[in-house]
Amino acid sequence: MKFEILKTDGKARTGLIHTTHGVIETPAFMPVGTQASVKAMLPEELESIGAEIILGNTYHLYLRPGSKLIENLGGLHKFMHWNRPILTDSGGYQVFSLSSRRKISEAGVVFQSHIDGSRIELSPEKSIEIQKELGADIIMCFDECTPYPATHEETKNSLELSLAWAKRCREVPLKPHQTLFGIIQGGMFQDLRELSASSMKKIDFEGYAIGGLSVGEDSDTLYEMTQTTASFLPFEKPRYLMGVGKPEDILEAVKSGVDMFDCVLPTRHGRNGQLFTSEGTLVISHAKFKEDSNPLDPQCECYVCKNYSRAYLRHLFVAKEILASRLNTWHNLHFYLQFMKNIREAIKKSQFDKLYQDFYKSEAVSCHCEER
Amino acid sequence: MKFEILKTDGKARTGLIHTTHGVIETPAFMPVGTQASVKAMLPEELESIGAEIILGNTYHLYLRPGSKLIENLGGLHKFMHWNRPILTDSGGYQVFSLSSRRKISEAGVVFQSHIDGSRIELSPEKSIEIQKELGADIIMCFDECTPYPATHEETKNSLELSLAWAKRCREVPLKPHQTLFGIIQGGMFQDLRELSASSMKKIDFEGYAIGGLSVGEDSDTLYEMTQTTASFLPFEKPRYLMGVGKPEDILEAVKSGVDMFDCVLPTRHGRNGQLFTSEGTLVISHAKFKEDSNPLDPQCECYVCKNYSRAYLRHLFVAKEILASRLNTWHNLHFYLQFMKNIREAIKKSQFDKLYQDFYKSEAVSCHCEER
Repeated sequence: MKFEILKTDGKARTGLIHTTHGVIETPAFMPVGTQASVKAMLPEELESIGAEIILGNTYHLYLRPGSKLIENLGGLHKFMHWNRPILTDSGGYQVFSLSSRRKISEAGVVFQSHIDGSRIELSPEKSIEIQKELGADIIMCFDECTPYPATHEETKNSLELSLAWAKRCREVPLKPHQTLFGIIQGGMFQDLRELSASSMKKIDFEGYAIGGLSVGEDSDTLYEMTQTTASFLPFEKPRYLMGVGKPEDILEAVKSGVDMFDCVLPTRHGRNGQLFTSEGTLVISHAKFKEDSNPLDPQCECYVCKNYSRAYLRHLFVAKEILASRLNTWHNLHFYLQFMKNIREAIKKSQFDKLYQDFYKSEAVSCHCEER
Repeated sequence: MKFEILKTDGKARTGLIHTTHGVIETPAFMPVGTQASVKAMLPEELESIGAEIILGNTYHLYLRPGSKLIENLGGLHKFMHWNRPILTDSGGYQVFSLSSRRKISEAGVVFQSHIDGSRIELSPEKSIEIQKELGADIIMCFDECTPYPATHEETKNSLELSLAWAKRCREVPLKPHQTLFGIIQGGMFQDLRELSASSMKKIDFEGYAIGGLSVGEDSDTLYEMTQTTASFLPFEKPRYLMGVGKPEDILEAVKSGVDMFDCVLPTRHGRNGQLFTSEGTLVISHAKFKEDSNPLDPQCECYVCKNYSRAYLRHLFVAKEILASRLNTWHNLHFYLQFMKNIREAIKKSQFDKLYQDFYKSEAVSCHCEER
């Protein structure tokens, strides 16, 4: 992997991540393909709307269908028919959010599968081994996502566990096309974010993620912690804000110099009928759209907005048609990917501040999104 | 509408149905788009696998979102972004199979909606009015699907009701691009099939459907009744066997001179993971496919078989991914449409008998399909 910064505008920057499976323009949004499928979408459709990298979930894929099985079938790219770059998370986050009866020790984590209750062990070495089997281009260190809220002491202990694990992750040899990112923790404490960042930098990773955010804190804290953490990271390496977020969250993070994002919002909201538009979020089941012949977003040029009315999309959603999930997901992902493209172009033209101001003047701020 | 027979081979024939929205090659299979969507498929995908006409359900569309609403939005073609021909059924079949507390009289049917229990009236005139509003190219007479089993007397009474209704349907003026098909009833009685056919021919329709089959009778009876009824129908008009069926049922009906078919089997089986292949029906959830790197059907050239393994399709199905429904439906519909294409080509080359013999020698007979 090679990261090339093409242009900066304030702290915001645009660049290229070169991988064996292709180039990713940054700032980049990665659609989430939890179970070897970005829900309701074909790989070709993702490509057509500008997705250049997707995220796969180590926890889910390890439990089902199994990472060894995927490796035997030629790796995740071939398995799911996606030939561009893939990033896999470490499984740590899902162990903490999905599994039950987990027991954490210096060695690793023992937990029960959320699918069949079976006993699973995950350690730094095991997580990297799974990600090697999956064959992702960018793989993540196994870490503990510090609970929120947490005291300074709890956060520091958690951070040190993650740090010890990061060192062990670093020692596992990877496949030639793979690269490893470290994850900065430190909760909502500036000094601990700095401690985590400086310690991780000493281990030396090809990129750094900002972890432990979007866990329940308010937006101001999210933005402050993102900015602080980004400022401690080396300029020349990619920065990835994990699991974030709403369009305004992404905009704020880009302003702080973040390069990569992932979030389930566009896909999950799509399936739930909450649609992102240039005029704000729109709940498609609303009765006011019953006979509305307009496209979802008159300013949008996606396949859905060019060919279907709000009335049809409402009908599909109300009638629980599979096509509702397809079209709504398609539009929402297009919205996100187009948003990233606009951001990249603004940075290239040194107009990021203008885009930033215009965004808050517009009605695109997703005030109706309760969910993170 | 104009029907042009290009070639016959025994009783089997291949031809063209010319409509305002395009040409349909016969024998034709019509994918079912009950609620203004062929479940899980885009219109462009249907086109790409060779669908030339789809079926919409009057009963469902009348209840939700409403035929008047669809007309106000430019008609069903525009509403669902499908610009090729559409056939709508009359709603009769669904009134008898889906609604509760129905009361039939000479005037029509009063019943409760299966969606919200509201009281709905449907009559021959009303059914045609709804189909006019939907804007289908081929619309069907409102009739009673005779229950099975039924005595000779019950069947005759039902037939006469349908006949009286057919006369009233014929009197409703249609939109210029629309054409009306009559439906032959008569249950499992040859003399009543003949009576229904001769009476309907006197009214004179642009095409004739064979109704009241695939209602629980055995295959031999289905084939016998199809053959008998087809023999009473005028040579020069299209013949449509409603709601049928398995590949072998279609083959038998083509042998008897039937031109058009619709059935939910390929789409419903797709969603249930029962997949049609040249080697017979395959249940994708089966453990034996867990690590199977082969395509679904090695002889198939569809998008799914070219790009995905059985192992991946099994994983998607087991993990309840929306993509499972998409890919499985795609493959099954492709199987049906390719089957029709092979039939048409065989008739053109006077090789229908060979195709017929080869089919029964092959393992494609869908012995594992319990469902009709």
